[in-house]
Amino acid sequence: MKISRIEHLGIAVQSIDAVMPYFQDVLGLEYYKSEVVEDQKVKTAFLKVGEVKIELLEPTSPDSTIQKFLDNGGKGVHHVAFKVEDGVSEALAMCDEKGIRLIDKAPRGGADGLSIAFLHPKSTCGILTELCEE
Amino acid sequence: MKISRIEHLGIAVQSIDAVMPYFQDVLGLEYYKSEVVEDQKVKTAFLKVGEVKIELLEPTSPDSTIQKFLDNGGKGVHHVAFKVEDGVSEALAMCDEKGIRLIDKAPRGGADGLSIAFLHPKSTCGILTELCEE
Repeated sequence: MKISRIEHLGIAVQSIDAVMPYFQDVLGLEYYKSEVVEDQKVKTAFLKVGEVKIELLEPTSPDSTIQKFLDNGGKGVHHVAFKVEDGVSEALAMCDEKGIRLIDKAPRGGADGLSIAFLHPKSTCGILTELCEE
Repeated sequence: MKISRIEHLGIAVQSIDAVMPYFQDVLGLEYYKSEVVEDQKVKTAFLKVGEVKIELLEPTSPDSTIQKFLDNGGKGVHHVAFKVEDGVSEALAMCDEKGIRLIDKAPRGGADGLSIAFLHPKSTCGILTELCEE
């Protein structure tokens, strides 16, 4: 697998509006867009810091996985996404071969026009890990 | 505050040796050094992914804050560190003025030769946040 960089950090928040002043006015990060991902029941807001995006994730429904993460005491970084240069499908096949537990057996569409797949935190040091490509 | 990039992600692990195969052989990241930080009671190992370092943190004592984090069910990303271009002292003063809770009132020495200070997760979306400069 050829990873070039961290594509984004997914950060679970109860309210994007409530945390935006921290990210924009305290940290001084640049906000550049919002998007609703219907099938994941989240509203997102993107900020940029160097080559990495910060993806704020706000649940739009009580049965959103983000709402469940927050309800179970989850805080802060929800997932780490790596940009894969040689194909997410190929990366998944390699992970499977090496005994890494997969959440997604094949890439699917994610926010910001990416093709994405998740690895299970049981196999990745407790970090919900996303592999993605444009 | 002028943040140029994410300097590193601090990842709490029980054993660096146990997780290194995942980071090196599965993700293919480049390991470049280890260091013991005596006063924090941790052993670190650094890998590089794009412009960001992955700092693996292994407790060297049962009373290490990293051991406590793991014992309390903490998993994965322990902290996010931002590189500050216009001074950590100045950034802390600005945060204090804006009502952000500080863990460190003044910069101190951290791993990898950095000058660092932590902000309290209560004020930073639940993310233990480090500000650092070289």
